[in-house]
Parts: sequence; structure tokens; C-alpha cells
Amino acid sequence: MATIKDVAARAGVSLATASRVLSGSSQTSEDSRGRVLSAAAALGYVAHGPARSLRRSRTDVLGLLVSDIRSPFFSELAHAAEEEARHHGYTVLLANANEDTDQAEAVLSAFASQRIDGLLLSPQGPVSPRLSALVSSGLPIVLLNRTVEGLSAPMYGTDNAGGVRHVLEWLQRRGHRDVAYVGGPETMSTGAERRTAYLDGRAAHGITTDDAFVDAGDFLAEGAAEAMLRILDRGVRPTAVFGANGRTTLGAIRALRERLGAEAARRIEIVSFDDLEWFEFVSPPISAVRNDAAAIGTAGVRGLLDLIGGREASSERVATSFVDRAGEAPARIGASAR
Amino acid sequence: MATIKDVAARAGVSLATASRVLSGSSQTSEDSRGRVLSAAAALGYVAHGPARSLRRSRTDVLGLLVSDIRSPFFSELAHAAEEEARHHGYTVLLANANEDTDQAEAVLSAFASQRIDGLLLSPQGPVSPRLSALVSSGLPIVLLNRTVEGLSAPMYGTDNAGGVRHVLEWLQRRGHRDVAYVGGPETMSTGAERRTAYLDGRAAHGITTDDAFVDAGDFLAEGAAEAMLRILDRGVRPTAVFGANGRTTLGAIRALRERLGAEAARRIEIVSFDDLEWFEFVSPPISAVRNDAAAIGTAGVRGLLDLIGGREASSERVATSFVDRAGEAPARIGASAR
Repeated sequence: MATIKDVAARAGVSLATASRVLSGSSQTSEDSRGRVLSAAAALGYVAHGPARSLRRSRTDVLGLLVSDIRSPFFSELAHAAEEEARHHGYTVLLANANEDTDQAEAVLSAFASQRIDGLLLSPQGPVSPRLSALVSSGLPIVLLNRTVEGLSAPMYGTDNAGGVRHVLEWLQRRGHRDVAYVGGPETMSTGAERRTAYLDGRAAHGITTDDAFVDAGDFLAEGAAEAMLRILDRGVRPTAVFGANGRTTLGAIRALRERLGAEAARRIEIVSFDDLEWFEFVSPPISAVRNDAAAIGTAGVRGLLDLIGGREASSERVATSFVDRAGEAPARIGASAR
Repeated sequence: MATIKDVAARAGVSLATASRVLSGSSQTSEDSRGRVLSAAAALGYVAHGPARSLRRSRTDVLGLLVSDIRSPFFSELAHAAEEEARHHGYTVLLANANEDTDQAEAVLSAFASQRIDGLLLSPQGPVSPRLSALVSSGLPIVLLNRTVEGLSAPMYGTDNAGGVRHVLEWLQRRGHRDVAYVGGPETMSTGAERRTAYLDGRAAHGITTDDAFVDAGDFLAEGAAEAMLRILDRGVRPTAVFGANGRTTLGAIRALRERLGAEAARRIEIVSFDDLEWFEFVSPPISAVRNDAAAIGTAGVRGLLDLIGGREASSERVATSFVDRAGEAPARIGASAR
């Protein structure tokens, strides 16, 4: 197979010039551009260059990178994004980062080699080289639910502070003082925003400010179970536990049952950020912030289609509501969702 | 943007010749091939031809079409497939059919235009023109969990008959006679195989053969809830309900609670094909066939990599186990899983 060196030799230009032309740089003369592209075509040279130029033709395919496909929040978001995209004649291809920066890089690399018209991205951690490259390639990109410092793209996400406020008010109404908080990674904006809102608001809602009650996992069940066990290992006994997302809540409940037994665990009230479809059937039922994944997925696709169409798109925070399942007659407070 | 006519004119060949060259046909002279490709490069011509030839180079990307991304069975399967693929240096791009044949067609069409090395497919219904085209294009394909009549590809899936046998034995041990069966679509092999195994085995296990107790949804929660309501509308009162997959079980429980109230619904024992992570915390806990999604996803990727590497691959049925949560001390019968 022909290499970029073969192309440069046949075109009679330097390797650097061949590389600039094939990477789509505009800093090349019309003449060398014509010679390099002809040489590449004659040799059947296949590289990122042709793929990138192909990408510029409309493919009606959008890429969607989610943080954790096993999280109902993201599978619901993906489903809604798909529906909205389909409504506009687009198909969505999904990829999963599994809350792992290395895996996210591999996926971004795969998307870079594919023919997509735009990318919806729920990022892990800070801006990576791969992400910078995609942004500077001109591919339309929007962020879902998480911001990335240094990356300016419209972001469609949850009102984390508002969601946590619902929980604080509920904990106060239920009379809880000894509340355990099992958070997510602070390197993610959702983890950081929820934690900050909780720590800043707890004193005003009559909740202990003893940090022995606070720990964090990785937003997955296993990491959350370990965080819950660390809290119990400090000798504190919460009357309520607040899980910072759906899978965190699952992990916390597993840890409570394993360590304290089912009976004692059932006496601890559980409240979760993210309302999962099984929460109403769990014993006792779990109260939760309803995080409107479908609205976020839909808004994200609309924003991306605006960018693809050359229009402006602006960030949106989607309001949360709260489902109170603690009382005998469950009542819903806050805005209604979906 | 340059058209194929512009390319033919610049290269000084007929439209038919330009088309043959650009579609990758070997029935062209070396000379016209060189002229057409140079002309196409100089004009920046972009078409399906180059994309098709790009696909033939290795991309290290696999496509995975799942039936329903919101089903924990498929998100678990996708996650395991990803892990296995990653282990071999491949990235997986996912797409969701949402149990809809039209959407599946759109996704297959998107995959056809992408650069993938192989496809894992959990099909909806019979062979479609798009699927036939992909198969005859020589793209390596394996099937996940569902067979398609007339399509010969290795299939990696659940032992449905064995799973239903676990349920029948459990129902008999629990002394149930009036059992409602909420199935899935018969157009899918999983729906058909589970239903046949249940109908064929019920009499021998002391279960009513009254078909008023039997109905089917679409393997999604809403369709299953409607099926459950149809059964109740016939005036029969089951002591146990068997849901043919996880989301079917969710829909059936919702319908029971809505129609009979939480107290009466709680007295009906629930058993499910597919064990979901929340079943142990539901009141009363739900017993279930553990359908090893991770093993199926892993086996499917291994089979596909065999095909991509030019080796043979053969179908596999993955054994199920059963998690009995009805007793005070839950016991597991059958083979151990994961």
C-alpha cells in the first residue's frame, strides 16, 4: 500500500507539504495541492485526509459518545436523541466511554475516521488531544450533561444545583440530620456541581457538616459501594443516604444491605439524583430527582443540527423535578417532567 | 461540488468508464483508471466509490446493532462486547433499532456507509433487502441472540428452552396453576422460542392450558403492560406472572399495580426471563432466569473476529441459570452464571 512518502516523491514535493495537503491545511499553494492530490489518487493512497474530506459531504449520520451505556440515564438520553435525529432524517451511531478517559479517546479516534456530520459528546475529564483535534477539524460538536474546561461548545445538561436543592429540602422536611453523601468524580462537572451544591447547602438545611459522612465513587455501582463502605467504616451511622446518580444509589444500597443486613438497611431512607424506573417498586420506595434525560438528548440534537446548518446554538440547562415516595400518598414537588 | 460528469469530462473518458473506476470495478484499463482518479482528486470529487474502497482497508471499528438500548440485557451485552473488542484493539460503534424494523433498516444503511470491519447484529424480523445487501457485500456478520430465517451467519444467543424450563420447574415447586404468560413478538426468534417452550411444557408442570392466561407485547414495557391488561380483562386472576424479558416484566408489574392496587399486586408472584440488577430490592423480590448477556456479547465478538481473520466461526447457545428469590433464604438452581 502506498505511503505518504510515495505520494510526496511522485508529486515532487516535500513530505511536510504532502502532509499539509493531505491533512486539509489551507497553507499550501494551489499547484502543490493539485500535484499531491493527483499523486495520491494515482497511487490509491488512503489516509485520514480522504476520510476527512469525505466527512464534509453529508452522511446523515451523527455520532453520540455517552459516558456509561449501562446507566439508564444515558440509555434514555441516547434513545431520545435517536428519535429526534430520526425525525430530521439522521441516524445516530453510539459509542460508550464507560467512564474511562482512555476508552473515550479510542472512541473519539474511531469517530474521527468515520463519516459523521456532527458529534454529541458526554465528556470524561479535561480536554484531550484527540478532542482538540476534532474541534479544530471543524466537526460540529455539542456537549451533553458535562462541561469541559477550555472547550467552547454548546452544552445541554441538567440543572444540578436545582436538583440538589430539591433533595436538601426533602431531607430537611423528613427531619434528617445524619445524612451520608455518596458523590461522583470531581473531575466531571456533574460530580463537582452536585457535590458543591450539597456541601454549600447542607448547613442551612439542618444537615451535619461532618465530612466523615461524605465520600465519592466513580458514578458506577461498584465504586459507589466502596465509598459507602468507607463511610460506614468511619463509625458513622446515617439515617439517610443521598446517591449522586442512579448507579451510585444502586451501589450504596448494595453496600448498606451487605454491611448492615436487609432489615437495618431498610430503615435508612434513600434519595437519588436520577429517577430509575424500578425505584417505585423497591422496598422502601426511593425518592429521586427526576433528571430529564430525554429532554437533554432532544435539546442536544436540535443544537447540533443548528450548528450543522450553520446556525447559532446556545447552551441549555434542563430543569429537574422531584419524586417524593417517602409518604404513604406519594406527592411530586417541583416542575413536572416529561 | 464536482459531479461524476465533471470527472469524466476532465479525464476524457465516458461517463460509464468514470463510474466503473469510481465504483472500484476491476474492468477498467490502468490508463483510464489513473486519469479518472487524478481528475476526481483535482476536482475534489467525493462519492460512494472512495468510501467503498476505504472500507476495505482495516479500520479497527466494529458495528453493533442492538434491538433496544434501554434494555439492560442489551446495554450489558454491548458493554461486554466493547470490552472484548477493546482487548483485541477494536472500537465498537453501537446503533439501536428500538425493536423497530424501519429503524433497523436506517441503521443498517448508516453502517453500510461507514468504515467498519464487521457487524454484530441483533435482528428485527425477517431478512430485509438492506441486510441481504450487507451480507452479499462480503462484510463479516454475526447474529446476537436472535436468528433470522434465510440468513446463514453464526448466532450467539441464549438457551431459551433451557431458561423457560427453569421457570416451569420453579412455578411447579411454588404450586402455581393459574399462571399468566406475557410474551414477546413471535416474529423474533427469542419471542417464538420462549413461547413455544412455555406452551409445550406447561401441562407437564401442572400449569393451566387455558389460553386466556397467555398474551404478548413487543418486548418493551408499554406493550407488555397492555398485554397484561388484556389478560386481566378476560376475567382471569393469575397467582403468578411470567414476563418473557426484563422490560416485559416491568410493564406487567406496572399494569398489575395500576389495575389491582399495590397490595393485591404484591400477592402475585413474578418471575422473569432476564435478571435485572434491581430485582433483589423489589418488594416482593422477583425470581428470574439469568440470561448471560456478557457471555453472549463476548462470544459474539470472538466469532466476528474469527470471520474477519478468515477463520471459521460457529453458533453458540449460552446456558442460563435461575435465581430463586421467593424463599426466605434465596437459593440458586441450575448452572452458575458469570
